[in-house]
Amino acid sequence: MARWNLRAAQLVALTLLTISDSGITLAEEKAQMVRLSKLVIDESQLETYRAFLKEEVTDSMSLEPGVRALYAVSEKDRPTHFTILEIYADRASYEAHIKSAHFLKYKTGTKDMVKSLELIDTVPLVANMKIK
Amino acid sequence: MARWNLRAAQLVALTLLTISDSGITLAEEKAQMVRLSKLVIDESQLETYRAFLKEEVTDSMSLEPGVRALYAVSEKDRPTHFTILEIYADRASYEAHIKSAHFLKYKTGTKDMVKSLELIDTVPLVANMKIK
Repeated sequence: MARWNLRAAQLVALTLLTISDSGITLAEEKAQMVRLSKLVIDESQLETYRAFLKEEVTDSMSLEPGVRALYAVSEKDRPTHFTILEIYADRASYEAHIKSAHFLKYKTGTKDMVKSLELIDTVPLVANMKIK
Repeated sequence: MARWNLRAAQLVALTLLTISDSGITLAEEKAQMVRLSKLVIDESQLETYRAFLKEEVTDSMSLEPGVRALYAVSEKDRPTHFTILEIYADRASYEAHIKSAHFLKYKTGTKDMVKSLELIDTVPLVANMKIK
């Protein structure tokens, strides 16, 4: 019985150690992949590009639990310049994402619209930041 | 009675028009201020800067309902390069934010650490994107 109680206490301690306030495990915090993608789009195809990206982002967020966010913005003064804050639960979620039908549709559909693409791996300052 | 039914129907229609899926009103969607801040920090003061920014972000998120997100990342290959995705409910929330005690503490405390600061006004591609 004493041994059982010790095991139970260890289990509770392990749970407390691995689950953070927001419900995301510390393991996920460390495994998360957070990236900035910067794109410049051909101005003559801007509206078509926006439609492709919007569909890809919406599908990824609704279909892929491991895609935590794809927050895309375009600059007010340069509407052809996009930045996407991409958050994946882990590298496996990212690898699955780039093999998904909706991502491949976007990637092949827009390949002649993207004038430049820069991928920047980052580290978030505050773990588990959310958008209210 | 017919007039009352019409009024009720108008009220329902108005509610449907002004409340979006996430509970944020369409009025807020249009009023939201979304910005990218890009900063380069003096390397010799990097850890102190990180502590200042972390406190400022945490305080703003917990104390200011109109600060929807301050998602700060540093680049893996260039840890002195920061990008912050800033989302405010509206311009008034932003104006209140930059007058807050925690922001002024950060701003004055880090003024000799910031080598460059670029503020880029943006338009989000998908309204009400959240982080899962």
